[in-house]
Amino acid sequence: MNVHNAPRPEAAARPVSVAVVGATGAVGVEIRHCLEQAGLNLCRVRLLASPRSAGQVVPFAGGSLMVEALGDDSFQGIDYALFSAGSGISRDYAPRAVAAGAVVIDNSSAFRMDGDIPLVVPEVNPDVIPARPGIIANPNCVAIIATVPLAALDARHRIRRLTIATYQAASGAGAAAMEELRAATAAHLAGDAYAPRVLKHPYAFNLFSHDAAINPATGYNGEEEKVVEETRKILRRPDLHIGITCVRVPVLRAHSMAISVEFDEVVEPDAVRSILSSAPGVRLVDDRDGNHFPMPNEASGQGDVLVGRIRRDVGDPSGRSIALFLAGDQLLKGAALNAVQILQRLVG
Amino acid sequence: MNVHNAPRPEAAARPVSVAVVGATGAVGVEIRHCLEQAGLNLCRVRLLASPRSAGQVVPFAGGSLMVEALGDDSFQGIDYALFSAGSGISRDYAPRAVAAGAVVIDNSSAFRMDGDIPLVVPEVNPDVIPARPGIIANPNCVAIIATVPLAALDARHRIRRLTIATYQAASGAGAAAMEELRAATAAHLAGDAYAPRVLKHPYAFNLFSHDAAINPATGYNGEEEKVVEETRKILRRPDLHIGITCVRVPVLRAHSMAISVEFDEVVEPDAVRSILSSAPGVRLVDDRDGNHFPMPNEASGQGDVLVGRIRRDVGDPSGRSIALFLAGDQLLKGAALNAVQILQRLVG
Repeated sequence: MNVHNAPRPEAAARPVSVAVVGATGAVGVEIRHCLEQAGLNLCRVRLLASPRSAGQVVPFAGGSLMVEALGDDSFQGIDYALFSAGSGISRDYAPRAVAAGAVVIDNSSAFRMDGDIPLVVPEVNPDVIPARPGIIANPNCVAIIATVPLAALDARHRIRRLTIATYQAASGAGAAAMEELRAATAAHLAGDAYAPRVLKHPYAFNLFSHDAAINPATGYNGEEEKVVEETRKILRRPDLHIGITCVRVPVLRAHSMAISVEFDEVVEPDAVRSILSSAPGVRLVDDRDGNHFPMPNEASGQGDVLVGRIRRDVGDPSGRSIALFLAGDQLLKGAALNAVQILQRLVG
Repeated sequence: MNVHNAPRPEAAARPVSVAVVGATGAVGVEIRHCLEQAGLNLCRVRLLASPRSAGQVVPFAGGSLMVEALGDDSFQGIDYALFSAGSGISRDYAPRAVAAGAVVIDNSSAFRMDGDIPLVVPEVNPDVIPARPGIIANPNCVAIIATVPLAALDARHRIRRLTIATYQAASGAGAAAMEELRAATAAHLAGDAYAPRVLKHPYAFNLFSHDAAINPATGYNGEEEKVVEETRKILRRPDLHIGITCVRVPVLRAHSMAISVEFDEVVEPDAVRSILSSAPGVRLVDDRDGNHFPMPNEASGQGDVLVGRIRRDVGDPSGRSIALFLAGDQLLKGAALNAVQILQRLVG
């Protein structure tokens, strides 16, 4: 299915064919939007999904595309396949896409911690992308949003330890969870009962520990384990100490985090502010007089990670810790945009 | 105005007269409910508020009471006056109430850090209440909810440092903020615009750094400063290191917190669980298999602080830190209930 979009002046010269697997999910929708805006010369775009979604016609780049059922022959002639349909689909189909000649950018957790698979945040570690890649993993949303500012800091002042508390949006559990948050809240306001269907716990004006399964040996849930492992891999800091609590809050699509960053040495808050003010992918929102700091509503729809509340962590008597607060769009930089930025690196 | 409630079998023998200042506010309503359930022998209850609220008739203990305008003669014949009408009112009227012979239990921040004023959480430091008290301060809601479990831990294993991220409910900013959260959310769901009136930032499906003014010298806001100072005073640990980030989340009336507790020594998670399982005012909610941990919806309406997610903070390489998550009703234990529990100690 060809995309009938007029050549754009900023378009890269090389025409590329792209498949999106999971094209109708919350992330898939955003991947389509990001592809429209990426300035790529897209000669072909295939939108792939489950048989349930096949046949849907969706607008794309001024034209329209029909969603096709994912199958064995979905990747013939495809240069790049962006997967966002869960780990099971990725494990099954990503190797087939590679065998068919495509480079896979995979948003699932299936391959992220595979030693042979690069785990990429373009602002942080684009150099780990090999000359002839097969599968490239798109990291966990919290790990992406956290590492964008943290990598810039770690490059100047070595980080020793992170203490993270997250405020995670519904979008991390998909479009159905976002809809459940809306529906449960509407029911609550109307005084009606609402039985959770997507998430385990009531979501209206409520929050809860992330619902990923708990590792009985440690007490950490799967989300927390991913963030710890992936942050270390992205930052190439296997020795980094990370304590984390992941919490879902009744917010639709941007994740926030309170982070205490302990450095090897005393670092002034102004030095942190200065580094972050020129860090790629970061926007400082740190207005103390106006009491204006990163908020999910302002992060939503933005590609940058908003960072503020930069101050000494007075809980660390050594003076080596800086506290900060950040917010980033879970669907964009936390997923779709990061994947398309990887694609841009590959094509560019 | 007399309360026509039949003598209750559990009622304390001594009849007491009580005034509630700020009786129509979010906390005032809960103070009335707590007084009804406290098993006190209330011979007289005066409900005091601004002239705007005077004349309202509210149900109380099976009868009804009329709200009166706070004035110079409001405290004649009153044994105990519970203030919850803001610091200005407390500064003006609490000394007058004491001069009239009443003991004041003050929920504002006006006197909390006064060296001569006891700051009391009944489960933690009832012994600081003097034999002939004048003003007793009810602590900040976050400080109360945090210190209930932390005091039990500190009594057994000395705490060195706390790292706290809060998830604070609308109720901390009063009944109008709770209503704003509901109204802003309803407008958002309807696709309508809503201009914030009570809080500075949009609240529908959004969160933001606590709106108390920022100390320009440190970057901490007034709420964070209160929690640090009051926690140290309540725990009698002026040396305790506390780093904190206070955030308002779109939750109606219970505060949650992610806390990393660093002890002087290595303490096992099971030891923490054991101590908390018998700590007064604490209820363990720590079901890893069921992924069921403290949530504000389950803390709402409860007197106990819910504590769970007890695990080693793997971010601390020394092994001396334990991570936990808790939730407590901001209006009850965080304010009204704690004040009435102080009253019970005084009467009992």
